[in-house]
Amino acid sequence: MKINHIAVVVEDVNTALKFWQTALGLPLHHVEHNEGEEVDIAFLPVGEGEIELIAPFTETSGVAKYLAKKGAGLHHLCLEVDDIEAAVTRIIGAGAEMINEQPKTRPDGTRYAFVHPKSTGGVLLELYQLA
Amino acid sequence: MKINHIAVVVEDVNTALKFWQTALGLPLHHVEHNEGEEVDIAFLPVGEGEIELIAPFTETSGVAKYLAKKGAGLHHLCLEVDDIEAAVTRIIGAGAEMINEQPKTRPDGTRYAFVHPKSTGGVLLELYQLA
Repeated sequence: MKINHIAVVVEDVNTALKFWQTALGLPLHHVEHNEGEEVDIAFLPVGEGEIELIAPFTETSGVAKYLAKKGAGLHHLCLEVDDIEAAVTRIIGAGAEMINEQPKTRPDGTRYAFVHPKSTGGVLLELYQLA
Repeated sequence: MKINHIAVVVEDVNTALKFWQTALGLPLHHVEHNEGEEVDIAFLPVGEGEIELIAPFTETSGVAKYLAKKGAGLHHLCLEVDDIEAAVTRIIGAGAEMINEQPKTRPDGTRYAFVHPKSTGGVLLELYQLA
């Protein structure tokens, strides 16, 4: 298992990049304009993982509502597993709660599932199995 | 640069370990009872970094106050740098604000400094230079 990414919800990607890219010196891999989730996402590789800066560009998205309610900051942690089915089965078997028990698949083939924060001690935890 | 650790503030370390160690399957390296900061910290290595579960054991510590105010969840992100003086100089030069401009030193020789969340887009960011 390893840390795949840390997601940070920010007001604005370009403003956030002035810190993470310019001041801190992380490389910027690319910025994705995601129409489906109504967010811009900047991907900054760091070691074997990456930092994702996520900013809503509408007021209707889930991320926009999160930002309005909770403010900017650390949003979720994503861990990479070899076998997501086995991981989910183990988590459920231990009495913890998934947000989606059935892993979903991104266009690039990555399979993912979220563990509910009430089972982790307050952390929204994403599990990834790369394609 | 790489992710050194993600710190999670939890109500109780043993309860949190039921998820992170037992349900998720991360190895537990050790639990530290830190009298100085009035917290217990569980260290769980994952890939090249680790997850730290931090729980206050008094109501007077900074972490206890954070927990009472903000609730459990992701607390800070720590990135490892080769040269903390150079990193801090660069950050200040770019107009960002440190919590401590002068790095402090832990008993094991690790030097650390925190960047203020208002400069990062809401993230309490710790920088480490290992001894």
